[in-house]
Amino acid sequence: MVIAPTVPLVTREDLAIAYTPGVARVCAAIAADPTLARRYTWIGHTVAVVTDGSAVLGLGNIGPRAALPVMEGKAVLFKQFANVDAVPICLGTQDVDEIVAAVTALAPTFGGINLEDISAPRCFEIERRLDEALPIPVFHDDQHGTAIVVLAALRNAATVLERKLGDLRVVISGAGAAGVAVTKMLIAGGVTGAEVIVCDSRGAIHSGRAGLNQSKAELAALTNAAGRTGSVADALAGADVLIGVSGGTIDEAAVAGMAPDGVVFALANPDPEVHPEVAARHARIVATGRSDFPNQINNVLAFPGVFRGALDARATRITEAMKVAAAEAIAGVVADELRPDQIMPSPLDPRVAPAVAAAVARAYQ
Amino acid sequence: MVIAPTVPLVTREDLAIAYTPGVARVCAAIAADPTLARRYTWIGHTVAVVTDGSAVLGLGNIGPRAALPVMEGKAVLFKQFANVDAVPICLGTQDVDEIVAAVTALAPTFGGINLEDISAPRCFEIERRLDEALPIPVFHDDQHGTAIVVLAALRNAATVLERKLGDLRVVISGAGAAGVAVTKMLIAGGVTGAEVIVCDSRGAIHSGRAGLNQSKAELAALTNAAGRTGSVADALAGADVLIGVSGGTIDEAAVAGMAPDGVVFALANPDPEVHPEVAARHARIVATGRSDFPNQINNVLAFPGVFRGALDARATRITEAMKVAAAEAIAGVVADELRPDQIMPSPLDPRVAPAVAAAVARAYQ
Repeated sequence: MVIAPTVPLVTREDLAIAYTPGVARVCAAIAADPTLARRYTWIGHTVAVVTDGSAVLGLGNIGPRAALPVMEGKAVLFKQFANVDAVPICLGTQDVDEIVAAVTALAPTFGGINLEDISAPRCFEIERRLDEALPIPVFHDDQHGTAIVVLAALRNAATVLERKLGDLRVVISGAGAAGVAVTKMLIAGGVTGAEVIVCDSRGAIHSGRAGLNQSKAELAALTNAAGRTGSVADALAGADVLIGVSGGTIDEAAVAGMAPDGVVFALANPDPEVHPEVAARHARIVATGRSDFPNQINNVLAFPGVFRGALDARATRITEAMKVAAAEAIAGVVADELRPDQIMPSPLDPRVAPAVAAAVARAYQ
Repeated sequence: MVIAPTVPLVTREDLAIAYTPGVARVCAAIAADPTLARRYTWIGHTVAVVTDGSAVLGLGNIGPRAALPVMEGKAVLFKQFANVDAVPICLGTQDVDEIVAAVTALAPTFGGINLEDISAPRCFEIERRLDEALPIPVFHDDQHGTAIVVLAALRNAATVLERKLGDLRVVISGAGAAGVAVTKMLIAGGVTGAEVIVCDSRGAIHSGRAGLNQSKAELAALTNAAGRTGSVADALAGADVLIGVSGGTIDEAAVAGMAPDGVVFALANPDPEVHPEVAARHARIVATGRSDFPNQINNVLAFPGVFRGALDARATRITEAMKVAAAEAIAGVVADELRPDQIMPSPLDPRVAPAVAAAVARAYQ
């Protein structure tokens, strides 16, 4: 990424306007009326993409400098799809209090904060505290970007199968940042929480299980009303939908135990929890996070348009309604072209971000 | 300012390279060998321009959002003159500890830190602590950028007058960020400290004066060996050079008391301490910070090349020798064209930043 001027600078007059003394008039105007900052500075179109490098892709805790290429790549996508100017910020601390303090300190520079690749459960507290503290949108993409695209994909999968979201039995494998957010988003979008079972490495999460941390206890309260126990395979027996956001693996036998005409989203990258060709032997609709198989579910479909819409609406936060609207907009782009192997638009489809932005801006109250 | 990609993003292959999964290989390479961050990320050409909005131009403490236009303007100059990508960072805190913590946290994102428009004496502690803590250059432009261009201008003024720097009696009016740094820089560049008198609003600073804060006590130890007391007018009696970095005003009568063939740099913006036409009645060489009078002394001549040189040299800090080298390089650009009304290159002279960058890089040990 590079930083590019939006004004020419050739003559002494240009210099006098862009810098001293001309800029003093702009500063004084904003000091007198802070709302003018949106007109006269970059904050109306600029977000920070903030990481601590603690959970980068599948590479884990590689630290801030090694995470910078991901943030630069993300900035390219923000620009390309939604003309949002995104500034990578890689923090040299993994202390929750220090991260909250640093992001709070730099927030006046930006129109929004995209948190990225911060490990669970720290990411929940960091996002919650920043969301409460800051007057601009805060959005942890690994949680909500993923959750939005999963909801979009499941809506279209249900349409293809002529099923209602509320009637589906859903198993979510993975209770980290993405698993928690996907669970909440699906419920907000119409899935029946009582019929969802979330599994972690120890199996089904239920309210009777000992030793649940705060986020898993919250999941237990939202899901699995029957209190089912056991492994992922046990949970999958008769289930309609498997959503893998774990990075682990799931046996073919477990997938084979699902109900007929099932749905498998195996989203671990680069290695899906179950190979899509294997899953396809037992499920009607199969999706992954990869570009080399049909039905790629990639959160680049969500975050550029979500922030564009939030900035356009001058939103102070990103609400559940805005996220559901984003999912509906993504799903809607391919509504007339749905097939079992085409439930999602291409990540490069230029129609997506504008549709998402418009829907998100409309949904902001 | 906008953020611009340096790579195309049109096809699925572009996406796979710029983002997942291709970017993972770059991240893993940097995690294994951190020095590769300079090759594979933006840090080799990117600096943060950091302010807390506490001392913005002549406007004072207008806060971070109202300061943003200055930082954006500065970023335009960095790009234009030295192809340095500069990212505005306006901090929502004016607490020294919080500023140091925030800048330390975000430092891994950048190749250097340009501090800007932070009030004295806080700026001294902030810069010192960051300079000690961080492995990248930290440079408070209001101090050192100003000091570099003043030294450059005084070198050329002395050449025009056929005087030696070490023989000049110098009065510096102003003991804030710029006054402190100008004093130290002039001494590092060859002016005799014993013959310098620094004045603040209470008059000459000398080691016998009660109630000096830490930075003024340091100035007293470096200057005014004779322990002269009194007003700016008293100090100016018989002096060769007046350097105004105060924002105050200086009477014509005081300037009239200077030695013949004197030098007046009245650098307050937009209102020089003494009007240049008034000063010219009594001094041989007159300079200001303004573009509408001859001899503009503007730190845009310094900071772009200083950071370009420091980045090119992979410098971990900016030393006194690098600053002196920058001043010599700026002075050298017009060495063959010197006149009393042309002691400095134009702020738009494209020869300056490359000359400064080369000299700064050479001077780094």
